[in-house]
Amino acid sequence: MAKDSKPRRPRAETPKGFRDYFGADVTERKAMLDRIAAVYHRHGFDALETSAVETVEALGKFLPDVDRPNAGVFAWQEEAVPGIGKGDGTAGDWLALRYDLTAPLARVAAQYRNDLPTPYRRYAMGPVWRNEKPGPGRFRQFYQCDADTVGAASVAADAEIIAMLADALEAAGIARGDYLVRVNNRKVLTGVLEAASVPHDLAADVLRQVDKFDKVGPDGVRALLTSGRTDDSGAEIPGVGLSNAQTGPILGFLTARGADNAATLANLSAAVGASATGAEGVAELAEIAALLDAMGLTSDRVVIDPSVVRGLGYYTGPVFEAELTFEILDDKGRKRQFGSVAGGGRYDDLVERFTGQKVPATGVSIGVDRLLAALRAKGMAGAETAGPVVVTVMDRDRMADYQAMAAELRAAGLRAEVYLGNPKQFGNQLKYADKRGAPVAIIQGGDEAARGVVQVKDLVLGARIAASASVEEWKSRPAQVEVPRAELVAAVHAMLDDGTGT
Amino acid sequence: MAKDSKPRRPRAETPKGFRDYFGADVTERKAMLDRIAAVYHRHGFDALETSAVETVEALGKFLPDVDRPNAGVFAWQEEAVPGIGKGDGTAGDWLALRYDLTAPLARVAAQYRNDLPTPYRRYAMGPVWRNEKPGPGRFRQFYQCDADTVGAASVAADAEIIAMLADALEAAGIARGDYLVRVNNRKVLTGVLEAASVPHDLAADVLRQVDKFDKVGPDGVRALLTSGRTDDSGAEIPGVGLSNAQTGPILGFLTARGADNAATLANLSAAVGASATGAEGVAELAEIAALLDAMGLTSDRVVIDPSVVRGLGYYTGPVFEAELTFEILDDKGRKRQFGSVAGGGRYDDLVERFTGQKVPATGVSIGVDRLLAALRAKGMAGAETAGPVVVTVMDRDRMADYQAMAAELRAAGLRAEVYLGNPKQFGNQLKYADKRGAPVAIIQGGDEAARGVVQVKDLVLGARIAASASVEEWKSRPAQVEVPRAELVAAVHAMLDDGTGT
Repeated sequence: MAKDSKPRRPRAETPKGFRDYFGADVTERKAMLDRIAAVYHRHGFDALETSAVETVEALGKFLPDVDRPNAGVFAWQEEAVPGIGKGDGTAGDWLALRYDLTAPLARVAAQYRNDLPTPYRRYAMGPVWRNEKPGPGRFRQFYQCDADTVGAASVAADAEIIAMLADALEAAGIARGDYLVRVNNRKVLTGVLEAASVPHDLAADVLRQVDKFDKVGPDGVRALLTSGRTDDSGAEIPGVGLSNAQTGPILGFLTARGADNAATLANLSAAVGASATGAEGVAELAEIAALLDAMGLTSDRVVIDPSVVRGLGYYTGPVFEAELTFEILDDKGRKRQFGSVAGGGRYDDLVERFTGQKVPATGVSIGVDRLLAALRAKGMAGAETAGPVVVTVMDRDRMADYQAMAAELRAAGLRAEVYLGNPKQFGNQLKYADKRGAPVAIIQGGDEAARGVVQVKDLVLGARIAASASVEEWKSRPAQVEVPRAELVAAVHAMLDDGTGT
Repeated sequence: MAKDSKPRRPRAETPKGFRDYFGADVTERKAMLDRIAAVYHRHGFDALETSAVETVEALGKFLPDVDRPNAGVFAWQEEAVPGIGKGDGTAGDWLALRYDLTAPLARVAAQYRNDLPTPYRRYAMGPVWRNEKPGPGRFRQFYQCDADTVGAASVAADAEIIAMLADALEAAGIARGDYLVRVNNRKVLTGVLEAASVPHDLAADVLRQVDKFDKVGPDGVRALLTSGRTDDSGAEIPGVGLSNAQTGPILGFLTARGADNAATLANLSAAVGASATGAEGVAELAEIAALLDAMGLTSDRVVIDPSVVRGLGYYTGPVFEAELTFEILDDKGRKRQFGSVAGGGRYDDLVERFTGQKVPATGVSIGVDRLLAALRAKGMAGAETAGPVVVTVMDRDRMADYQAMAAELRAAGLRAEVYLGNPKQFGNQLKYADKRGAPVAIIQGGDEAARGVVQVKDLVLGARIAASASVEEWKSRPAQVEVPRAELVAAVHAMLDDGTGT
């Protein structure tokens, strides 16, 4: 029992599936989001930041594959105390962390419907939370970056979002030619299902299989729609049970992409047959294609592509996905396309949940972590990550002098700090400067102070010389110079500007 | 029962005590935080963004006035499923939303202690959550903006944080002379309590009363420390029960502020009497004063002021508070000082909870909402809030033309959008432009299109003319001009640049 009397120390760990972001992880993401926000702003979209916490009833149940109450979200019940919860002594509301930025927008559009402009264009950026099983690269908190237009029924709104997505990707740093936005329309798929006489209660199953087209190809989808298939691991995947004849229009639809948008649209017209909904979908795609053309978005940036389906059940019209077309090496060193980084579409039913009135809406969500990973893969995540100039401490009693040096350097626009650890071991100070990525260290002992000078040490050059320099280089470019104290700032500037420092 | 068969619609409401931020509320706060982050960065502080969710055991119980388990935080228990929670089928960990940015920093400093530089300077900005009773202006989610140095025992670290806080306030837009950072030391107070022979178990009570000095003055504090007092509302506040003699050193301490720091320090030396801890605290304050002096922070920016106590129990050394000294009108139209917007101090025990080893730390937290409110009160919240140029839709079939106009305006760096609501009623389009704060509207009907021209309407001038213009002004500066389509961008630029638009 004596063992238990000492309280256990808390574990210093994030909860499973959560992580911390350090330094450049924060600033590079922020720089990317700032560039995207500028594009959204220029298109007339206004910022919106909703609370992270919503009532469970307002969030609704739009997460895919959710079969238990509150599954997929982090939820808790309000305490039953006055002023919080219902305030009548009974249990309070169930609250939850938002799982995306669209459900809160639907709530906002309903809550403030008399005050917001119609249409309401808004962008939002921030973390969302999913109570899912974590895995490698799968976290339970991650960033989304959305733009939506609420209250515009015209497909001009969809076209605008698609064009803006292309602009946003370029602003983030993805070069033209390295991305492609592929556009489809849920109504065309509905029309195809009608043309194939697929019963209504099988539609969701069919959609799920059709969404695998990119992965398993036409034969794979045909198998999944009929009697099933065996996947790479040998597992039997049951089929939906359609006849081979029924798969004809569906496969025709999935492979409808032609040499240009006009050819694709003609193929789609054939695939939807006599379905009125299908024809409406094709007409909308034609209008979107014309609008994108007028805005100068040629087929190297945006194409009509029927293989885009998008998993979420709530889309009702145009859907689209942006993929990065350059290749990266996967975990096993094999080349593969980077793939999807953003997607969206029209969802005309989400606000109706609250108000009973149809409110058309369309929007896009950028996968922030994936896009940032893409920028890094291309060496384009350009936030400033240089370490500070480190003013070392040779004499603990002259801390005020060292602070004054750092203050001078900062006033000149440089990043600078005084070493604040135990100054006893000078070697530790240089190790610290190295860990901080410091380009320059400042040194002033009692002797230098008496003579009114400082030592300015080029740590970048120093590291290079230590690694590989010839004697000549060592002699011609000393990694450390002594300058009068009054010339400290000028000497650091000169050292940084010669290209070896920041 | 028929009534119940129709499902109730969800309420479109934020949970009680939560709010949404629209447009300028988001961008002005962001602009302010960006300016502050630049100051922190220049001082060598690195960004850190911890997860919003922590284990309850890692967060600890440092919220003031908490008497129930998990009180004050939003907490829930992990589900007992494999991969989440403990994974052994028993109930999972308790998780909670962070209530500040300091507790997560302590967890990070312990978790990554072998990887982080020592000392570790970090800044953090983001929402925190408190499960408290909401009230007017009191929300359950709000922003904090912190900078801390972990692993530096020297008061040079405190002095640096204090100087940086002054810089950050000025960078945010608070003019020199409009703020004052007041610095004290918890050890001095401890010394004073020793000098006054206050029993250890009364120290916390005494501290709580001393913290009210700014509100109730010396006589009020003396009453609260002895037999109690009656407040403005007639309520009896019980006293701590000290003798009048014991209050002597305490009141001497609270009123120790002299004409300059040297005088204040002399008064404090007298107040702590023979206490060694007190003398140590006074010596630390003297060192901080000398360092601030060397960094050029004169007494119009920072002063030693014994009346600063700070409520949180975890401070162990220097404490400080920044207050804005200009006056604003309160709810009842009376002038009052704006008051505190930031505070912090040294807390040497927080990391020890995890590791068992003392880790010195010091930091500052800026109250983001209060500082932003101050900037607004002074008319200094300078984010761009101009509405977009609105391209109106006269002819639904020529949407592509209108989108092309907006794209051209954007390419020229202007904020522009096409009206995407129902274009039938033109009046609605102008009402929309007004609601959006649009400076300019573009109009092109079939007639104008045939003639190759557009109408450019100055909505700012138009509003002024409608309100007050003379006939002469109306004639000399028409609020609407017709220009060739090719001159659209130039005409809008000219209209915006003449000072009536953005």
